[in-house]
Amino acid sequence: MNLFFSRRLKQSTALLCSTALLLTAFALPATADEGMWTYFNLPTKQLKEKYGFEATQAWLDHLRLASVRFNDGGSGSFISPSLVITNHHVASGQLQKISTAQKDYLKEGFLAKNQAEEIKCADLELNVLMSMEDVTARVNGASKPEMNAGQSRAARRDEITRIQKESTEKTGLRSDVVSFYQGSEWWLYRYKKYTDVRIVFAPEKQAAFFGGDPDNFTYPRFDMDVTIMRVYENGKPVASPHYLKWNSDSAKDGDLVFVSGHPGSTQRNITMAQIEYQRDVRYPRVLNFLKRSLSALNEYAALGTEQRRQAEEDIFGFENTQKAYIGQYQGLLDKNIIAKKQAEETDLRAKVSANPEWKAAYGSAWDEIAQAQAKLNEIDKERRFRNIGNSQLFNLAALLDEYIKQMKKPDAERDPGFHEAELESTRLQLFSPAPTYPKLEERVIAGNMQLALDELGADDPFVKVALEGKTPSEFAKALIAGTKIGDPAYRKSLADGGEAAVNASNDTMLALTKKLVPMMEAMEVMVAPLMGQIAAANEKIGKARFAVYGRSQYPDANFTLRLSYGTVKGYPMNGTIAPSRTTFYGLYDRVHSFGNKEPFNTPQRFLDRVSKLNLATPLNFVTTNDIIGGNSGSPLVNRNGEFVGIVFDGNIESLVGNFIFDETANRTVAVHAAGIMEAMRKLYDATALADEIEGKMAKSAKK
Amino acid sequence: MNLFFSRRLKQSTALLCSTALLLTAFALPATADEGMWTYFNLPTKQLKEKYGFEATQAWLDHLRLASVRFNDGGSGSFISPSLVITNHHVASGQLQKISTAQKDYLKEGFLAKNQAEEIKCADLELNVLMSMEDVTARVNGASKPEMNAGQSRAARRDEITRIQKESTEKTGLRSDVVSFYQGSEWWLYRYKKYTDVRIVFAPEKQAAFFGGDPDNFTYPRFDMDVTIMRVYENGKPVASPHYLKWNSDSAKDGDLVFVSGHPGSTQRNITMAQIEYQRDVRYPRVLNFLKRSLSALNEYAALGTEQRRQAEEDIFGFENTQKAYIGQYQGLLDKNIIAKKQAEETDLRAKVSANPEWKAAYGSAWDEIAQAQAKLNEIDKERRFRNIGNSQLFNLAALLDEYIKQMKKPDAERDPGFHEAELESTRLQLFSPAPTYPKLEERVIAGNMQLALDELGADDPFVKVALEGKTPSEFAKALIAGTKIGDPAYRKSLADGGEAAVNASNDTMLALTKKLVPMMEAMEVMVAPLMGQIAAANEKIGKARFAVYGRSQYPDANFTLRLSYGTVKGYPMNGTIAPSRTTFYGLYDRVHSFGNKEPFNTPQRFLDRVSKLNLATPLNFVTTNDIIGGNSGSPLVNRNGEFVGIVFDGNIESLVGNFIFDETANRTVAVHAAGIMEAMRKLYDATALADEIEGKMAKSAKK
Repeated sequence: MNLFFSRRLKQSTALLCSTALLLTAFALPATADEGMWTYFNLPTKQLKEKYGFEATQAWLDHLRLASVRFNDGGSGSFISPSLVITNHHVASGQLQKISTAQKDYLKEGFLAKNQAEEIKCADLELNVLMSMEDVTARVNGASKPEMNAGQSRAARRDEITRIQKESTEKTGLRSDVVSFYQGSEWWLYRYKKYTDVRIVFAPEKQAAFFGGDPDNFTYPRFDMDVTIMRVYENGKPVASPHYLKWNSDSAKDGDLVFVSGHPGSTQRNITMAQIEYQRDVRYPRVLNFLKRSLSALNEYAALGTEQRRQAEEDIFGFENTQKAYIGQYQGLLDKNIIAKKQAEETDLRAKVSANPEWKAAYGSAWDEIAQAQAKLNEIDKERRFRNIGNSQLFNLAALLDEYIKQMKKPDAERDPGFHEAELESTRLQLFSPAPTYPKLEERVIAGNMQLALDELGADDPFVKVALEGKTPSEFAKALIAGTKIGDPAYRKSLADGGEAAVNASNDTMLALTKKLVPMMEAMEVMVAPLMGQIAAANEKIGKARFAVYGRSQYPDANFTLRLSYGTVKGYPMNGTIAPSRTTFYGLYDRVHSFGNKEPFNTPQRFLDRVSKLNLATPLNFVTTNDIIGGNSGSPLVNRNGEFVGIVFDGNIESLVGNFIFDETANRTVAVHAAGIMEAMRKLYDATALADEIEGKMAKSAKK
Repeated sequence: MNLFFSRRLKQSTALLCSTALLLTAFALPATADEGMWTYFNLPTKQLKEKYGFEATQAWLDHLRLASVRFNDGGSGSFISPSLVITNHHVASGQLQKISTAQKDYLKEGFLAKNQAEEIKCADLELNVLMSMEDVTARVNGASKPEMNAGQSRAARRDEITRIQKESTEKTGLRSDVVSFYQGSEWWLYRYKKYTDVRIVFAPEKQAAFFGGDPDNFTYPRFDMDVTIMRVYENGKPVASPHYLKWNSDSAKDGDLVFVSGHPGSTQRNITMAQIEYQRDVRYPRVLNFLKRSLSALNEYAALGTEQRRQAEEDIFGFENTQKAYIGQYQGLLDKNIIAKKQAEETDLRAKVSANPEWKAAYGSAWDEIAQAQAKLNEIDKERRFRNIGNSQLFNLAALLDEYIKQMKKPDAERDPGFHEAELESTRLQLFSPAPTYPKLEERVIAGNMQLALDELGADDPFVKVALEGKTPSEFAKALIAGTKIGDPAYRKSLADGGEAAVNASNDTMLALTKKLVPMMEAMEVMVAPLMGQIAAANEKIGKARFAVYGRSQYPDANFTLRLSYGTVKGYPMNGTIAPSRTTFYGLYDRVHSFGNKEPFNTPQRFLDRVSKLNLATPLNFVTTNDIIGGNSGSPLVNRNGEFVGIVFDGNIESLVGNFIFDETANRTVAVHAAGIMEAMRKLYDATALADEIEGKMAKSAKK
């Protein structure tokens, strides 16, 4: 299935590749509490003026050194000399990997009674940012006046490799040269790496992800989305002096709070032409596609219990994607948000035009984008609807065909995904024994083709070649009747037999992919140069922006450490007000309102121990901080730099934050420190761990 | 202040006159669980087919005779031989009237420990519908072929008066002849009247209206919106055999439920031309007006604490109005809802066109409306923005001027509101000692005039005459500086001095009203014949609809007893799912989430006695029943005709229900029987009353 959004804020390739934009991205003039600021350029003036807050260098260094990057996507922080806290959904991959047939730690949770019981993660790398060094002069200096663009790029790339290598050799630290402001600045970021990390505490997934997909991206929320790990070096717990002091009695309504974490990627600086494309062209079509896909799946699911079971996961996935798209689309439709965007673009263009040098270098970029975008818009419909991408069998047949073609080539000439080193995972996918459901496929394919027919008309070459005069239902029926591609053994035999076996086969799905895939690829060939044109123009705008505003703005997110500031604050929601925090009372309300039915069920311990809890304890809360995917697990700290909560999601209204930040209703959703402590002590009997975190003398290390 | 919506579902003149439509209204082809059905024509077939439910005549008679109309707006039901339950907000007027300086029953609540303590309402009339008789033939028979339209109308009116008088004399019952289906049918409704009604139990207003204006029209909710009264006759409690058996263990997710109550008014049958006017012309302008008004008020409130106090009530009022308008507007923008409406209109027009007789009689009506509406649209902007209606002083000056004019005339020639019998309340208003705030007025007037200037331009006669070349701020400043109209004594002296005193005065506000009011009145003179034209055409459509569909449809609401059916069901909300019920847990969550701050505070007893409650007890719930203002206090009954809850509100998505019913998200919001019982027993110590209601032997009548 073709899902566009990853779940929640864990940074992942799915999220990074989620939009059809594929843009280089740029920074906006910052207003309000907007901004994911680099630690080398903090908005000290705004903080002073608006909040009377002055961050000392010691305060900043301490917070930076307590902040942790999860290298497979996500953030965390030290909350003791050796303990790191992150989200359960950031740690879930590791929890999965340590699980066995006997013990499902993801589902059941885990508490190590002592250090000996802690379980080492299979392949986790944590990074702590030790230093930042401006290497712009050195990187740009590598490019000489006599070089052409390609040579310049190569020279810069080589210089970056040199810098990284030198630094690693000299310091022993992981050393990454990263670009900010569209290559206007280059910095060397050095990280301390930790690879011996052990699970100490994780609640049950149902406590961490209470409300499941329906509640995902929403607030009010009631999730215990945390996992605690201990970091080791040389077989001993590390003893970092830089950890955040726990404070359960903070994060109150109106409080100033900071998020220190690793936002993955933003596209805050697309132009109005691109925004209009998103709003007027892309989103309505994607939403139509999702709606039609869901209606086909739901019709199938309505046929019976087994059909429902087969379609269920796809339905959930599509619904969640639809929710995310609707959230972004609502943001794009918001006139205030768009007016803000327009005002920023107008200001930048005016300032560029007023300076002859800037005008010559960058002035044409907006029109270049608008022109390329207009051409993309013309072919957008064909590009989007010449597709039956919901069909698993179609995708398997296409992958098989490609696999056979690629295998004929020497390794060096193969496309990505087909090099020897990658073949294992490609084959895993290709020969997966996971079942496919022919009748479900038939519905899905008929639905996709009906959509193509409705949108493109019967005379469209793709539609014509596929349907051959049949109705979409007749077509799908005949297609599924004539294919064995769902059988892993059959796929294996064809793969082994190579081109000859494929040519000898009369499999209908294979025949179809041979006809349709080239037509789909042809569309991408048309699109590629236009996308390139847009990317180049966007880079110009990025440089223009930095020329005009310099460091008065923050650069787009790039999975480096950022600091954002904001306040604990509710917002207008559902015709009323969403409070700035929720309590355990609210968790139990939702449990009992839904009769403790999945995904609104809670682990049994929550039901058994309800009377032990102080139900008024804050559980989740919202803040105006500017965050994005990758910030999952980031600590929220107060003025004293104390840990007061942990980021785990954004609300629906935050989804447009990929393009535009508007603090009216964009909210960071976090677990409250008090809620975590209450659960550890009263629900999980994690007394020793809680004492360790709160710096109390543990009464017993083995309770 | 000019507020368009009354709070919640209590039927009131504010609600009845809330729209600028002023239409005669018509019935739709019913689908889904739609419909407010008359007891003489129930959708027995739909109920049988969809729910396998057959209502016996005894079941229906019992429910009808247990249903109570609150004659000042609202509904209720007998829940014992003498006890009637309704909403706290339906009873609030009576609670106010029995309160004294020493005892504020509205705020503090009330529980009679025994019958002697029950407090008699000042002027409450309850009605129970005893019989329905079709008098269409008799009413229409009064109109003879030789009569013209006016004579026919008069003859029918006289006949109606005769029928009512005869019936009252014969039966002693209140006898009302009411029209259904736009005068296609006339029925004589006879009611038993009860006027000795005593308050038995009312919770604190803060328990009944928890969440206040912000939560109004929304769900999830947590309100104990009930009041219980006892009905007396001849000094003794009545002993009606027709009361609803209480059932706390019902109204579960998916259950079939009925609402028996008195919806006030709907306009379900306006035409597409009218819908488009609402959606494209009226709502955007009204919303703009509200937004601008709120921004002026908020700017003023931001000046300081005293300013905030002065403006606060107006801000709340406008915000709530805005919420209601946005709710309706969202519904009008919903393409699915509008498509449904369009399909219905298309069907009706096709059927009318296919029948020559119908076509001749009714076929032109849609175009007649469209034409009149087009003319109204042309002058809509002027009509709407030639106004400074937010100014209390302007309205006082206009009222004073009108009062003096009217007082010169003999009583018979005066306009409504100025007859001798009405003068007391008019004078109360005119000479009210309530303070006015000149600086607030100045902002409000400047805001209104700025809006008029922006919308109409500087050359508009109204704007020109008002501003006389000044800016709106200068104008407002000068106007307020030159008026003493805020002084009640000054108004009194002018009223006493009559026209001579007014002419001698150089009060700026008086001078302004003399210039502007005639221009505003001129707009209404232009509008009146167009509205008349629309009303006449709408009546034709109503008759056409009845000719085509007959009683397969329900007639528009008219504050007569109706039955609606539906199921207990959550709905998509805020990107997730709203559950079909809430619990006491949720109440405490919201209390503690907002730090027990008004309007999210709860009476002290709720805090003191939390440990006594079963917090998982259902508190409020939602159903798909089709209701509207006037249904407040209606019982919800299950298949067994038992009381399972009480209607008190509709959600935001239900607001478009005035025009169109769509069950996707339109929900009735009710208090759950279990929640009421839990509160009475555990929070209010109303043991004897609870026992009486549940039919248990009271352990002690005096606990």
